Amino acid sequence: MYEQMWMNVSTKAPLVHNITNYVTVNDCANIILACGASPIMADDIREVEEITTICNSLVINIGTLNERTIESMVLAGKKANELSHPVILDPVGVGASKLRTDTATQLLKEIKFSVIRGNISEIKTLSKGTGNTKGVDADFTERLTDSNQQEVIAFAKDLSKRTGAVIVITGATDLVADENEAYLIRNGHPIMSKITGSGCMLTAVIGAVCAANPTNLLEAAVTGVTIMGISGELAYEKMIKDQAGTSSFKMYLIDAISIMDTEKLMSRAKINGNTLK
Amino acid sequence: MYEQMWMNVSTKAPLVHNITNYVTVNDCANIILACGASPIMADDIREVEEITTICNSLVINIGTLNERTIESMVLAGKKANELSHPVILDPVGVGASKLRTDTATQLLKEIKFSVIRGNISEIKTLSKGTGNTKGVDADFTERLTDSNQQEVIAFAKDLSKRTGAVIVITGATDLVADENEAYLIRNGHPIMSKITGSGCMLTAVIGAVCAANPTNLLEAAVTGVTIMGISGELAYEKMIKDQAGTSSFKMYLIDAISIMDTEKLMSRAKINGNTLK
Amino acid sequence: MYEQMWMNVSTKAPLVHNITNYVTVNDCANIILACGASPIMADDIREVEEITTICNSLVINIGTLNERTIESMVLAGKKANELSHPVILDPVGVGASKLRTDTATQLLKEIKFSVIRGNISEIKTLSKGTGNTKGVDADFTERLTDSNQQEVIAFAKDLSKRTGAVIVITGATDLVADENEAYLIRNGHPIMSKITGSGCMLTAVIGAVCAANPTNLLEAAVTGVTIMGISGELAYEKMIKDQAGTSSFKMYLIDAISIMDTEKLMSRAKINGNTLK
Repeated sequence: MYEQMWMNVSTKAPLVHNITNYVTVNDCANIILACGASPIMADDIREVEEITTICNSLVINIGTLNERTIESMVLAGKKANELSHPVILDPVGVGASKLRTDTATQLLKEIKFSVIRGNISEIKTLSKGTGNTKGVDADFTERLTDSNQQEVIAFAKDLSKRTGAVIVITGATDLVADENEAYLIRNGHPIMSKITGSGCMLTAVIGAVCAANPTNLLEAAVTGVTIMGISGELAYEKMIKDQAGTSSFKMYLIDAISIMDTEKLMSRAKINGNTLK
Repeated sequence: MYEQMWMNVSTKAPLVHNITNYVTVNDCANIILACGASPIMADDIREVEEITTICNSLVINIGTLNERTIESMVLAGKKANELSHPVILDPVGVGASKLRTDTATQLLKEIKFSVIRGNISEIKTLSKGTGNTKGVDADFTERLTDSNQQEVIAFAKDLSKRTGAVIVITGATDLVADENEAYLIRNGHPIMSKITGSGCMLTAVIGAVCAANPTNLLEAAVTGVTIMGISGELAYEKMIKDQAGTSSFKMYLIDAISIMDTEKLMSRAKINGNTLK
Repeated sequence: MYEQMWMNVSTKAPLVHNITNYVTVNDCANIILACGASPIMADDIREVEEITTICNSLVINIGTLNERTIESMVLAGKKANELSHPVILDPVGVGASKLRTDTATQLLKEIKFSVIRGNISEIKTLSKGTGNTKGVDADFTERLTDSNQQEVIAFAKDLSKRTGAVIVITGATDLVADENEAYLIRNGHPIMSKITGSGCMLTAVIGAVCAANPTNLLEAAVTGVTIMGISGELAYEKMIKDQAGTSSFKMYLIDAISIMDTEKLMSRAKINGNTLK
């Protein structure tokens, strides 16, 4: 199933509309292309509805919010909802400021999201309207561990039930859940937190996979998370072999997505879904 | 001639003013530097006229339009016209929204462009005020092929006559035309469409070559297109040799520009201009 | 001392708030991560005070100014002053337009900066309210040379006395001075001017080192400048060995920061501070 979902991206070559931050926007566009989809970055209030109409999914990322783009997010999100396009939210740094928390809350109220992806601090803040977000990184005391796993899964399922969205919580182990099922994915590498945009790029990848597989969003999200994790591993291996650093790692990560094949996907995926239903 | 025009860029080291999108802006700045010119990115209405005054050419790219930057484009364009600086337009995604089409139309009305570069869908939209733009990529049914070549050339020459601009239509084969002459350039590689910003970067390169060769814009545009195509070929060869992916390709592309020499240019250029006059 | 200051960055992992331009923002974020610190890019007026409060230093870069961000710079700067966080100014292209000169003047009036970094044209413009800035590059006639060294040092010490900030003037030789002491750093490579953002990235690195060493800003700035210069040398050596170009150089530069160790720092540093007191 995951192989098929991945192949669908390049076969269907969907368009992904992104309203995103100016820090990682280039990497997000390139990783969507590396998946085999096409990105459009457009945030002006006068065009976002038209742009989202010609696309197959919408990714909203609140990384560098401003008044102008918040309105655009709401408009585009409502239009995407109307057209039943998958809408993916990345609540970057929510909890770090009232603006971000208020905006995320407003977006959740006005838009029905298909997938929400963040680290555990961000997702907790979203859920509770409060949390301990240390900037854009996860709070260590809130990380998903073996001991709090069942608790975090229950939390994610509950949030999914309340929002209708697939919940993706990324960390050392990644969790993907809807209200009924949860998947733990144990791919990836800690060095991914040493470049900016690992999270944003994953959200963009999920946007691409969902655009190509709109009727199966839970597994589409699992596919995106797994592909990204495997690519992180491959990129890390290449970085070490080349005695390179983190900027090379970022390049190898996008490279790995662009040359990902189903054999690599199936041989390296560490998805423990079945045990968690 | 082309070698001389290329060498003029590093010899004269002109300044290129860019009002451009936030997606590919870093790559555009770096590729201008790789050419041997210097970029300035500035879009605030209160400084664009002054900035364009100290520069040698102006590149206007409508990739991520907003109200603030549209006014700046008009002001800067008029000032550049006044100073007889080459002004290059990249109508990214025109046709994908009314905002982009209206803006491009307005820019064409208020500014005299020296060169306009787009894919065939974008250029057709510009010409007709309507078209089938699928996002920021070209529409397949409109691509330049052997069978419609004479028709596309006639179209480009006519548009050049109406606008006074050199018209650059990029695709598998690239076309550069003014009202009298047309050049077909058969360099480049399809993988260039698998990174974001190939088009924007080419427009920036044209901006650099025109800044250094303001009295011969047709051949300056041909030089830019050819240099970019050859660099795409070299980058692709290196990517394959390294078993790398699309992010490496982007890096190798800018690398290739930065180490381009006249020997590579002359031995690899596939310019079939003479047969087309 | 320099080794200790460098190690403090990864040990303390401080947060660095950046209000910066959209051209080099991704590289600035990645180089801060490569140092072992964490970046937050946020410029909306409604959140900058909160964001700066949770951070350990603030970097203000005027590369792509607009009305919206200028107000945010002032607010964030005042808040950072209130909290005694180091505040670093990069007056990119000051002198190239009235907007930039006026803004820099206003920022200097309203905010107390800990460190100001620019090329000699920018720093002279800041100092005199006038200067010969050729876009964002330094004016050749104003470069620091052996013959004008004592004059430039006296100028920097005087400006430091007047502003209270450590002054960093970068060029072939870099100068770091407060009102009493001056350091000349002879690391780096001319190719650093062939990529966009060398200056912005250095300012970001200084922001990271100052955040981790807030009580010794002069030596923190020297550490940042030296680390960047050595990384430029290492990146250049690798570029030549790989027969690569300027885009590879940029990647190797950030790579070098991410794998910098105290042995490389101490064996390659060319800091001639003692002779200059």
